[in-house]
Amino acid sequence: MDRIGFVGLGVMGSRMVKRLLDAGRRVVGYNRTRAKAQWLVDLGMEWAGSPRQVAEAADVVFSMVTDTKALQAVTEGPDGILAGLGPGKVYVDMSTVSPAASRALAERVRQRGAQMLDAPVSGSVVTLEEGRLSIMVGGDRDAFERVRPILQDIGPVVTHVGGNGQAVLMKVATNLSLAVQMLAFSEGLLLAERGGIPRETAVHVLLNSVVASPMLKYRGPFVLRMPEEAWFDVNMMQKDLLLALEMGRELNVPLPTTATTNEYLTAARGLGLAGYDFAVLFEVLSRLAGRDPELR
Amino acid sequence: MDRIGFVGLGVMGSRMVKRLLDAGRRVVGYNRTRAKAQWLVDLGMEWAGSPRQVAEAADVVFSMVTDTKALQAVTEGPDGILAGLGPGKVYVDMSTVSPAASRALAERVRQRGAQMLDAPVSGSVVTLEEGRLSIMVGGDRDAFERVRPILQDIGPVVTHVGGNGQAVLMKVATNLSLAVQMLAFSEGLLLAERGGIPRETAVHVLLNSVVASPMLKYRGPFVLRMPEEAWFDVNMMQKDLLLALEMGRELNVPLPTTATTNEYLTAARGLGLAGYDFAVLFEVLSRLAGRDPELR
Amino acid sequence: MDRIGFVGLGVMGSRMVKRLLDAGRRVVGYNRTRAKAQWLVDLGMEWAGSPRQVAEAADVVFSMVTDTKALQAVTEGPDGILAGLGPGKVYVDMSTVSPAASRALAERVRQRGAQMLDAPVSGSVVTLEEGRLSIMVGGDRDAFERVRPILQDIGPVVTHVGGNGQAVLMKVATNLSLAVQMLAFSEGLLLAERGGIPRETAVHVLLNSVVASPMLKYRGPFVLRMPEEAWFDVNMMQKDLLLALEMGRELNVPLPTTATTNEYLTAARGLGLAGYDFAVLFEVLSRLAGRDPELR
Amino acid sequence: MDRIGFVGLGVMGSRMVKRLLDAGRRVVGYNRTRAKAQWLVDLGMEWAGSPRQVAEAADVVFSMVTDTKALQAVTEGPDGILAGLGPGKVYVDMSTVSPAASRALAERVRQRGAQMLDAPVSGSVVTLEEGRLSIMVGGDRDAFERVRPILQDIGPVVTHVGGNGQAVLMKVATNLSLAVQMLAFSEGLLLAERGGIPRETAVHVLLNSVVASPMLKYRGPFVLRMPEEAWFDVNMMQKDLLLALEMGRELNVPLPTTATTNEYLTAARGLGLAGYDFAVLFEVLSRLAGRDPELR
Repeated sequence: MDRIGFVGLGVMGSRMVKRLLDAGRRVVGYNRTRAKAQWLVDLGMEWAGSPRQVAEAADVVFSMVTDTKALQAVTEGPDGILAGLGPGKVYVDMSTVSPAASRALAERVRQRGAQMLDAPVSGSVVTLEEGRLSIMVGGDRDAFERVRPILQDIGPVVTHVGGNGQAVLMKVATNLSLAVQMLAFSEGLLLAERGGIPRETAVHVLLNSVVASPMLKYRGPFVLRMPEEAWFDVNMMQKDLLLALEMGRELNVPLPTTATTNEYLTAARGLGLAGYDFAVLFEVLSRLAGRDPELR
Repeated sequence: MDRIGFVGLGVMGSRMVKRLLDAGRRVVGYNRTRAKAQWLVDLGMEWAGSPRQVAEAADVVFSMVTDTKALQAVTEGPDGILAGLGPGKVYVDMSTVSPAASRALAERVRQRGAQMLDAPVSGSVVTLEEGRLSIMVGGDRDAFERVRPILQDIGPVVTHVGGNGQAVLMKVATNLSLAVQMLAFSEGLLLAERGGIPRETAVHVLLNSVVASPMLKYRGPFVLRMPEEAWFDVNMMQKDLLLALEMGRELNVPLPTTATTNEYLTAARGLGLAGYDFAVLFEVLSRLAGRDPELR
Repeated sequence: MDRIGFVGLGVMGSRMVKRLLDAGRRVVGYNRTRAKAQWLVDLGMEWAGSPRQVAEAADVVFSMVTDTKALQAVTEGPDGILAGLGPGKVYVDMSTVSPAASRALAERVRQRGAQMLDAPVSGSVVTLEEGRLSIMVGGDRDAFERVRPILQDIGPVVTHVGGNGQAVLMKVATNLSLAVQMLAFSEGLLLAERGGIPRETAVHVLLNSVVASPMLKYRGPFVLRMPEEAWFDVNMMQKDLLLALEMGRELNVPLPTTATTNEYLTAARGLGLAGYDFAVLFEVLSRLAGRDPELR
Repeated sequence: MDRIGFVGLGVMGSRMVKRLLDAGRRVVGYNRTRAKAQWLVDLGMEWAGSPRQVAEAADVVFSMVTDTKALQAVTEGPDGILAGLGPGKVYVDMSTVSPAASRALAERVRQRGAQMLDAPVSGSVVTLEEGRLSIMVGGDRDAFERVRPILQDIGPVVTHVGGNGQAVLMKVATNLSLAVQMLAFSEGLLLAERGGIPRETAVHVLLNSVVASPMLKYRGPFVLRMPEEAWFDVNMMQKDLLLALEMGRELNVPLPTTATTNEYLTAARGLGLAGYDFAVLFEVLSRLAGRDPELR
C-alpha cells in the first residue's frame, strides 16, 4: 500500500490526516509548527523534519496550505517538496491557488519525473468531519486513478474534472456562489425583518425553502449568533472571489453578481469586520440600511 | 369537516385541489376556463358557476391566481369572492401580490365579517407533487390554526410568519434568491466551461457542492437542456423581483444583488428569451461573453 | 403677442415667470400658496383664482409641478387646467412625470381642441438664473414652433426631440447620469482621500479634469460643505431613477449603473439622509467604508 | 536652463516633446522604434542611443510608457534610466502604474542620489494638443517646484497632490469616472433611442446637458461614428479600472459603479470589441438589449 505524505497540518489538513489514519493508512507528516500536530503523532502519524523529507519518504505526497506564497514556501528550496520528488511519485496539492500557478508547478513536478494533481475541496471542516466532503481533481487520469482510493478516504465524493489547474478553476467557479448566495440571503432576511417578521422566523422559513443550499443551512444561523472563531473569514472568501474575477478577465467572462458582492466584502474590511465569518455580510448590509452595529 | 372552496385551477391550483381530494376532502371549485378543470370534476370536485358561488358554498375559500389584476377579477364585483363571504368564513389567498394589496384586501374581508390569510408558497409544481411544498401564512393566529390541517394536506411544511401581508413579504424575500442564485451559478458555470471543463462535468460538480440549493438541483440541468414549457418564466421571476425592489425602497433596504440580477432579466426580454424558464440567465450571460446563441 | 399662463410657482416655476416678465411678456399665474407668489405680482404678474382661470385667460398655458399626483391636482376637476382649455390654445407641461402619463394627458388635451407639449428641463435653479437652461420638447412640431420664442426666453437652449412623452423620456434618460456620475465621483474621491490626498485637493483635481461635467462642477463642492437647503434631494433624484428603471423594463433596456446607484439612494434613506442633496452619496459610501458620520 | 530628457515617444510622449520644442526647450529623446521619432529629430530633438544615455545627458528626465512592464524595460539594467541618474537630477515618470510600483521606483531613484516625481496626465491627445491638459504631480515639493515650469509648457494645468505615488492614485481615482460616465451615458442613450428618439437627437441633447463632461463631449459622438484608431481602447481603460479596484481593496473603499462597469469592459473583450475606443460600451449594452451588431 502507498505510503502517504502530508505537508500542512492546519485546520483542514490535520483533520484529513485523521481520516486517513482512521482508514488504516500510514502517514508521514510535516507542519511548520510541530506543536499543533502532536495529537496526530499521538494517533500514529510519523513526523518528518521538512517538506522534502516528507516527499522522500512517501509515494503519494499531499499539501494543504493557505495561498500561493505558502505553497512556494513548502515546495521551493533545498528543503522543499520538489527537491524530494522523483519518478513514480504523485504530488497532490489541495490548496486553492490560481490555475496558472498550479499549472506552472505541475510542469516543474513533471521535470522531476513525478506527476502532479490539483485537488481543492469544496466544503468546510464540518463537511469534512461528517464525511460529506467533495474533492475536485485536475491532472492526468492515470495519476488520478492511482490516488483515487486515498482521496475517497478523505472525501468521499471525488470527481476528475480535467487537466492540471482545472480543479482549482472549478473550485473558484463554485466558491463565488458562496458569497453571492450569502448576500442575497441577507437581502431577503433584512427585507423580512424590516417588514416586521422576527429574524428567527425569517431564518427558519428561508432555511426550509428551495433556496436553502447546504452552505446556507450551515452558515445562515450565524446571523442569529456569530461564532467566535471564523472557519472561513472575509479575507479568505475575498481571496477566492479575486481569483474568480481574475479568471473572468482572463477568459472574458463577465461576473456581475460576483463583482457586486466583492465590494461588500471590501466594505466589511472597511467596517473592521474582516475577522468574522463572511456571513457578516448581513451585518454590512444592515449598517448600510441604517441599523445600529450588532458586532464590533 | 369544513367544506373547501378553490378559485383558480391553473398549474399550481389544480394540483393543490388534487392533493386535497386525495386527502379525502370535499372541494368546490371554479376556474375561468372550465375545460382545464374537467379532470378535477372527474375526480370528484364539485363545480360552481362563479367565484361568489364558491365562497357561498364553502367554509374555507382558497384562491390562487397570477397577479394583482387577476386577483381583483376574482374578488371584486357581483360575482366575486368578496360578495360570497360572511361571518365565520376564512378566505386564504395563495397568490403572490404586493403586501400592501394583500393587507388592503384583508381589510375588506374583515368588513364582511370573515377573516383572511395570505398563504403564498415557495416551490414549484414539482415540489408540490413530491409533497415537499413550504407554505408561509400571514394573518390572525386563530384563523391560521383553523385552516392549518387543510394547508398541511397541501404542503406539508406550514409556517405562520406574522400578520396580514407578511407571508407575501416573506415569499418575495425568499424568491429574490432564486434569480440571484441562478445568475451566480451561471457565472461559475461559464467560467468553468470557458476554462475547458465540459459543461456537463461542471454542472455535476456544482450540483454536488455546498452551493446546490434544491432550486439549483431542479433548475441547474436546464442549462444542458431547456424544457419546452416554462413553469416559472422570465416575466414571472421578474414580477417577484420587482415586488422585492419595491418593498426594498419602501422599507429602506438596499438590495444590491437583486438589482443587478433584475437587469439581466430585462436583458433576457430584450434578447427575445422571455418565454423561457429563468434558467435562461445562463444564455443571457453567455451571449454577453460573446458566445453564439443556443436558444432562439 | 400671446398671453402666457403659468400654474405652479415653486422654486423653478417662479424663476421662469421672472425671466418671462424680464423679457417683457404678459403673464397670468396661479400657485396653491399665494403668499409665495406675491413677489411676482409685485413685478407685474397678474393673479388668477384657479388653474382653470389661468387656462381661460391665456393663449399658452404652462405648468410646473413636482410629480404625477400634483399634476393631476392642477389639471383635473372643475377648477383644473383641462376645464379651461379650448381650440387654439397650447398647453406646455414642464413637470417630470412618466412618459405614459404625459401621453395620456396629451390625448385629453386634444379632446378639448387644444394641443399639448411636454417640456421638462435639464438643470437646476442656478442654471436657470444664469440663463443656461436646456429645455427638451415633445409634441407636434407646429405647436412647438409657436411656443419656441417663449421657451427661448426661459431657456435659452430649446430642442424638439419628438412626439408627446418623448421629452420626458429624454429628461429621464439624461438625469440617470446625474446620480451615477455623483457616485463614481464619490468612489474616486474616497479612494484619493483614503490614500492620503486631502479632500480639498482631490476635489480640485477632479473638478479640473475631463470628467468634470457642469453638474459635478456645481455639486462636487457639496462634499466639502453640504448646503442647508437641498434643491434636488435624495427623494427627488430617486424619483427620476425609478422612472428610468421603469422605462428600461418597458423598453427592454438593461440599466446596470443606474440600478446599482439607485440602491445607494435607498441606503441614503435608510441612514436618515434623505433630506440632503443627492451629493450625500459621498457620505453613504464613506460610511460603508467604515468612516464616522459627518452629517446627521 | 535645464536640459530635458524624454524616454517613450509614443502617441502622447511625442506630442509632449513637440510642445516642449515649441516652447524653445532643448530635448534629448529615446524611443524603442527610432523611425516613429524621426519627425521630432527633424524638429530639433537630439537623439540618444538608450534610456541610460538620455538620463546621463539631461538634468530632468521624463518617461511616458504604457504599463509597469514597459516601465521596468526602460528603467532597469545597464542601459536603463536608473543607471544614468545621479545627484542633482530629477526623474519624472508620466506613466500610469500602480502607486506601490511608483513608490518603489522612487526609493531606488533616491538611492542614486536623484529625486523622482510621478506625474500622470488626465486627458487625451486632443486635450494635449489643444493645450488643456491637466497634470497631477506626486513627490517632494522642492523637486516639484524645479520642474513645474517645464510641466506647464506641457500642461498647462499642474497640481501637486502629495508624496510619491499619490499622483498616480489621483489619476486612477479620476479615470474610473471615464468608464462609468460612458456606460451611464449609454444607458440613457439606448433608453431614448428605444423610446423612438433618433440617436443623433439624443446625443445632441445629452451633450448639451449638465451631465456633458469634457470627456463625454469628446467621446459621446463616437456612438454615431466610431473612429478607426482608438486612442484609449477597452484594454487601456480596463487597466486603469483594475488599478482602481486594486487600490480600493487595499484602502478598504467599496467601488460599486466601478466594479459594475468593469464587467462590461470584460464583456467587450468577450464580444471581440477590445480594439475599439471604450465608447464601445454603448455597443456592448445594445447587444445585451438584443440589438443587431453595428461593429465587428
